[in-house]
Amino acid sequence: MKVDYINPFLEGTVNVLKTMAMVDPNPGKPYLKKGVASTGDISGIIGITGATEGSLAVTFTEPCILHVVSNMLGEKFTELSPDIVDAVGEITNMISGDARRILGEGGISLEASIPTVVRGRGHIVEHVSNSPTIVIPFDTFHGKFSVEVCFVK
Amino acid sequence: MKVDYINPFLEGTVNVLKTMAMVDPNPGKPYLKKGVASTGDISGIIGITGATEGSLAVTFTEPCILHVVSNMLGEKFTELSPDIVDAVGEITNMISGDARRILGEGGISLEASIPTVVRGRGHIVEHVSNSPTIVIPFDTFHGKFSVEVCFVK
Repeated sequence: MKVDYINPFLEGTVNVLKTMAMVDPNPGKPYLKKGVASTGDISGIIGITGATEGSLAVTFTEPCILHVVSNMLGEKFTELSPDIVDAVGEITNMISGDARRILGEGGISLEASIPTVVRGRGHIVEHVSNSPTIVIPFDTFHGKFSVEVCFVK
Repeated sequence: MKVDYINPFLEGTVNVLKTMAMVDPNPGKPYLKKGVASTGDISGIIGITGATEGSLAVTFTEPCILHVVSNMLGEKFTELSPDIVDAVGEITNMISGDARRILGEGGISLEASIPTVVRGRGHIVEHVSNSPTIVIPFDTFHGKFSVEVCFVK
């Protein structure tokens, strides 16, 4: 997978969280996913096709997503309700859209599927490909989340 | 979503399980997913683009997938190991491939992303779209699994 693909997803994530939820996430250094993955409580997953095939997963801990969506919708959420599921789908869609916009400006045209959202305490997401998965860790005042991308080329 | 899209995924699932794992799954009547979803222990998820956008999820209970993969690889599996994760990714890929082959014969051209596999006891998968999600339930001698599809048109 091309290193050039990483930054657009990092930038897209920061743009979306800032714009939609007034949350300014602090990105850590992207790293190669090895061995057992980090776990989360809710994940948005989207498939990508076009110039390459891949997948994007955005995985949140419960306190982190409750804060993000409470900010986003201007209402206090205390559990992983249907509104949170929709918001995670929307956030994943928008991160994919913003990253694809940036890559498109560089001549790389990508399409996206509809998002899928998985709920389950401490679940693990794995991208099944011979290519490596890159993890971009983020920190917020209300907990951590991560963005993972995997592309076949 | 077009009703014509359902049968190719049903047929594809039966073809793949029979060919790869010598498991002959018994399909139930497809239904519209409403309210809270059924849960599973391991799911393969793949994004679809092209003539429409959508997503496919194949969700297994642990006893069911252990039996399927033990048959498929000719080795007894007793836990959700990395081999099982790879096999679920492969099965999801092949169901998507076979369904897209059938749809392609009818002139509907679809592409697929790489598969993502989620592990977590009793997790829930939801497809975030205004379109309905169709669930195709399957039964085997070693437990149930389900195939879900959602397309925007």
